[in-house]
Amino acid sequence: MLKTAVLVTGATGFVGRQAVAALRRRGVTVHVGTSGDDLLDPDARRRVVEGSGASHLLHLAWTTEHGRFWNDPRNLDWAVASLDLARLFAANGGTRLVFGGSCAEYDWTVAEMPLDELASVRRPATLYGSAKLATGDLLEAWGKAVGVSVARGLLFFMYGPGEHLGRLVPSVISSLLAGERVATTDGTQIRDFLHVEDVGEALTALLLSDVAGTVNIASGIGHRVADVVALLAELVGRPELLDVGSLPHPTDDPPRIVGRTTILDGRVGRPVPRDLRVGLAETVAWWREQKR
Amino acid sequence: MLKTAVLVTGATGFVGRQAVAALRRRGVTVHVGTSGDDLLDPDARRRVVEGSGASHLLHLAWTTEHGRFWNDPRNLDWAVASLDLARLFAANGGTRLVFGGSCAEYDWTVAEMPLDELASVRRPATLYGSAKLATGDLLEAWGKAVGVSVARGLLFFMYGPGEHLGRLVPSVISSLLAGERVATTDGTQIRDFLHVEDVGEALTALLLSDVAGTVNIASGIGHRVADVVALLAELVGRPELLDVGSLPHPTDDPPRIVGRTTILDGRVGRPVPRDLRVGLAETVAWWREQKR
Repeated sequence: MLKTAVLVTGATGFVGRQAVAALRRRGVTVHVGTSGDDLLDPDARRRVVEGSGASHLLHLAWTTEHGRFWNDPRNLDWAVASLDLARLFAANGGTRLVFGGSCAEYDWTVAEMPLDELASVRRPATLYGSAKLATGDLLEAWGKAVGVSVARGLLFFMYGPGEHLGRLVPSVISSLLAGERVATTDGTQIRDFLHVEDVGEALTALLLSDVAGTVNIASGIGHRVADVVALLAELVGRPELLDVGSLPHPTDDPPRIVGRTTILDGRVGRPVPRDLRVGLAETVAWWREQKR
Repeated sequence: MLKTAVLVTGATGFVGRQAVAALRRRGVTVHVGTSGDDLLDPDARRRVVEGSGASHLLHLAWTTEHGRFWNDPRNLDWAVASLDLARLFAANGGTRLVFGGSCAEYDWTVAEMPLDELASVRRPATLYGSAKLATGDLLEAWGKAVGVSVARGLLFFMYGPGEHLGRLVPSVISSLLAGERVATTDGTQIRDFLHVEDVGEALTALLLSDVAGTVNIASGIGHRVADVVALLAELVGRPELLDVGSLPHPTDDPPRIVGRTTILDGRVGRPVPRDLRVGLAETVAWWREQKR
């Protein structure tokens, strides 16, 4: 472990900062890449890689602008930057690369769940999903040709400290803490939620393993969105503020997205993740702290 | 047609020069990109695109070094260059892009033939195939997001003037013309051969059409390799030089690779391609001319 030096890109992001913390808890030397868009500059990429002397690369930086990233043309720029970064990393002696992929690479219209790394069809409906899939596919094939060990962690639904306020869990907590009515859809959609600290732990375990190929970074458990919202209201102590079903059910939302975690639990052996109730309680406590 | 200006990359290559000729026969304004590896330089890419003012891009440049390209790490560099080129092209007002893909994107281990653009599984066995597939997938998804019409022509087996001497047809012709014995395998593999001038015509028809997505650039007809070799010997007039079956049958060679051409013949409406005998006779004549 002593000789492992990890370069983390997107290290200041929602997931990245948890991965950095998890790596440091394990005593691993971590270099953080330049933040955000700097990696889109070829010279900045070169400097980051050459300055790190990293044996391991955890590449998480990508366009993530809330409400825009799904079909943001900059997904193409990030694919370019990611492929070039991998090339520079290998040219500087790097041997192990983990790329942050997405559950949006899967075909969400299929009925069979959980989504399986080997069996499930990947057919993204968005440019974001397509760019993540194409980049990951190419990095895997390239890794085999040049002798770099490549894995990709497909991130599912996450929550926890530092999440963008526009997203489900923070927006519900924020409204509840402010004493505002929370209007939601019927929330019958089932999603696979994982606390972002457990995402960081899972990515770290994956990076330090020798598992190659695709690995779902998920809880493996599906929860109804309505149940998540109800749990938050209970944890905040304001269940009367909920108005479930007052918004129309979205027409294009897949009914169920859950990831199989056989590889992550078995071959990678990530630490056991939090129970949803525990993770949400921590998240509520964190937001209470922010609001002081 | 008057306002169509086409930028062709790889314009001096085996396929590119035929595409340029076909475009010029149709009266289209053609800008040729810098040749070969120059496109790997970001500044050179910018200059080529900005200098062309092209509405249409036919992107054929790629690493093609004979005997090396299948798993050449530079396939990654060409993916990067291709994606960046597309971005520059759109930023400069480009509206129609055709990318040169490959039949090596398909899973060659499947039994069902002909290979179908919509139904057949694409699962490349090489870095070249993976890079072409990932690049094409991403260009298609990006094109939808930014409003650029994107198609990709998957090239099958080609022959004709200017082909690398290390490849099947030129090496057999060259040996026959020199009066040398031609040792071959049993040649039972079936392949889809298209004369490179007809490839240029098909790519031109595709570029000037509004057909989006994947289009096989193929003949649609399978020929046994042994029959191709026998035809060449007959055309050269030296059938006695053939020694078919004296080399061992390659173990990993797929028995049959043929492309369906319904889209190319129907929706694109390419000119009717040469019969194999006619195309090979022209090729033999071309090589006779070179040997003088």
